[in-house]
Amino acid sequence: MSRPSGLPMVVRDPALPTSVQIVEVGPRDGLQNEATTIAPDVKLEFIDRLGAAGLRVVEATSFVNPRWVPQLADAAEVFPAIRQRPGVRYPVLVPNERGLDGAMSAGANEIAVFASATDTFARRNLASTLDGQFEMFAPVVRRARAEGLRVRGYLSMCYGDPWEGAVPPDQVVAAGRRLFDLGVDELSLGDTIGVATAAQVTALLELFGRNGFGPERLAVHFHDTYGQALANTLSAMRSGVRIVDASAGGLGGCPFAGSATGNLATEDLVWMLDGLGIEHGIDLSRLVQTSSWMADHLGRPSPSAVVRALAGSAGADRSEPAKGQ
Amino acid sequence: MSRPSGLPMVVRDPALPTSVQIVEVGPRDGLQNEATTIAPDVKLEFIDRLGAAGLRVVEATSFVNPRWVPQLADAAEVFPAIRQRPGVRYPVLVPNERGLDGAMSAGANEIAVFASATDTFARRNLASTLDGQFEMFAPVVRRARAEGLRVRGYLSMCYGDPWEGAVPPDQVVAAGRRLFDLGVDELSLGDTIGVATAAQVTALLELFGRNGFGPERLAVHFHDTYGQALANTLSAMRSGVRIVDASAGGLGGCPFAGSATGNLATEDLVWMLDGLGIEHGIDLSRLVQTSSWMADHLGRPSPSAVVRALAGSAGADRSEPAKGQ
Repeated sequence: MSRPSGLPMVVRDPALPTSVQIVEVGPRDGLQNEATTIAPDVKLEFIDRLGAAGLRVVEATSFVNPRWVPQLADAAEVFPAIRQRPGVRYPVLVPNERGLDGAMSAGANEIAVFASATDTFARRNLASTLDGQFEMFAPVVRRARAEGLRVRGYLSMCYGDPWEGAVPPDQVVAAGRRLFDLGVDELSLGDTIGVATAAQVTALLELFGRNGFGPERLAVHFHDTYGQALANTLSAMRSGVRIVDASAGGLGGCPFAGSATGNLATEDLVWMLDGLGIEHGIDLSRLVQTSSWMADHLGRPSPSAVVRALAGSAGADRSEPAKGQ
Repeated sequence: MSRPSGLPMVVRDPALPTSVQIVEVGPRDGLQNEATTIAPDVKLEFIDRLGAAGLRVVEATSFVNPRWVPQLADAAEVFPAIRQRPGVRYPVLVPNERGLDGAMSAGANEIAVFASATDTFARRNLASTLDGQFEMFAPVVRRARAEGLRVRGYLSMCYGDPWEGAVPPDQVVAAGRRLFDLGVDELSLGDTIGVATAAQVTALLELFGRNGFGPERLAVHFHDTYGQALANTLSAMRSGVRIVDASAGGLGGCPFAGSATGNLATEDLVWMLDGLGIEHGIDLSRLVQTSSWMADHLGRPSPSAVVRALAGSAGADRSEPAKGQ
């Protein structure tokens, strides 16, 4: 497995950041949306290999009711068994106070809560309402902060909702403000159904900025359902965002989208960052090997273009003539 | 088959063009790189459906030696049988004077020649050299122009070459200049192996501009081998490019890349243009239906994210709870 010599060619863009922190969500957001449930020891190896590949934030699991997410029912078993690497953060998702109890019992020192920018999704995903969800999260965030845990807020359906259609940016900023008011350290803006396009991303980030929430506290979380994730990430970086969520090998997917594509693949992001000369700390070759290995466990090819290209190139015969003409 | 209501949300970017012309290369660049050879009557229906979906430039076939490209060996049978729609252009690729004879006999009034920006690919793909290829194309372009045919020039390996690695932009511009000097009306800059990233695209287009070749005569042609095609297209549009090559359903691929991904999928491009409020004239639903139908003929799913999402959503049950948390 190797990439073509000297490629991608590095050309910097002064309008883009010099470094980006990738938040790897494969073990949580990725695996929870896969049809195949992965065994705890494989998850542990996965998490370990992600750290070895240079990822510095690996969202490890979710302390959610196993009836909702059976794929992550082993959180209490997996999390304490992680061989935590120095300098790597291992946040976990918690939906409520019971989840927080589980996370803290397991030794987590960083959590994330998952809110919705729309009422319909708050009702369907959280059995709450747009307003009610913040009341639900308030004691979770308060206790977590009191215990010294770092807290990330996710905001889903920031650009569109399968029931409500386009989501007004004002509504998204209002929901984001409530999460910041609760005390989250960082807010990840999710395009849960993958419908956003580049200028919509710019406009939303500008609106957050005008409301006092600059890009230093914002992350972006794109799904590749309509192939837009990387173009949208480029757009977000142009607006100053330096924290980008991605999923190794493009693991996961939204069951509403009716497609096989999930999160932005970490490898595809890394290829772009490499070409732009943006630092990220990832060893792409190790990451591709890890995602290929996980794809074997899931019994299906990786949806990541880079994984398919580089994993497939190992035995490729480059002397066969191309059919360019 | 339908997209979520009101999505993508339209947000314009004043730095981008207000309209884009899509050059549909699926019947030529797409099908010539597919393992399955499609029957002439299916090709004819495909070309007709593309015109019906609103495409205004459909590269129909290639008058190349059938030993090189058996998938398009039926060019002389297919081309005259196309039910040409008013307002739609049907260019064909020709590699040499013999190909031009075939194209003109078949009634083509627009051709394209396919050159390489690198010496190695010129030797391997054209059995020529970086210099020699222009001598080969000179009489083709001269005769075509004398006969009143429009001529497009393709320049391949503009950003990287599997043997030579990164390709110096000066070399690309020098090769492009020679095609313009021969008399091509338009030059399509190809990332044949899909390795380019966004700022490299900007830099190359700027260099063309400084050499007197502005974006009005340039097209971009990206492959999605490493998932970069749409981000690169966004970058090219920001540099003023308004002609974008794409392949319905993402048909085709470069045999060197060792991956299943081919050209930028027209549907994924259309989704982005729709979100950006950029006019293109395509009926996305009809195009997705056409690409799904062609994927059935090829016996494999479409690599286009939009095709998979929209074709797959027909029977999707949107009432099932998402696993957002």
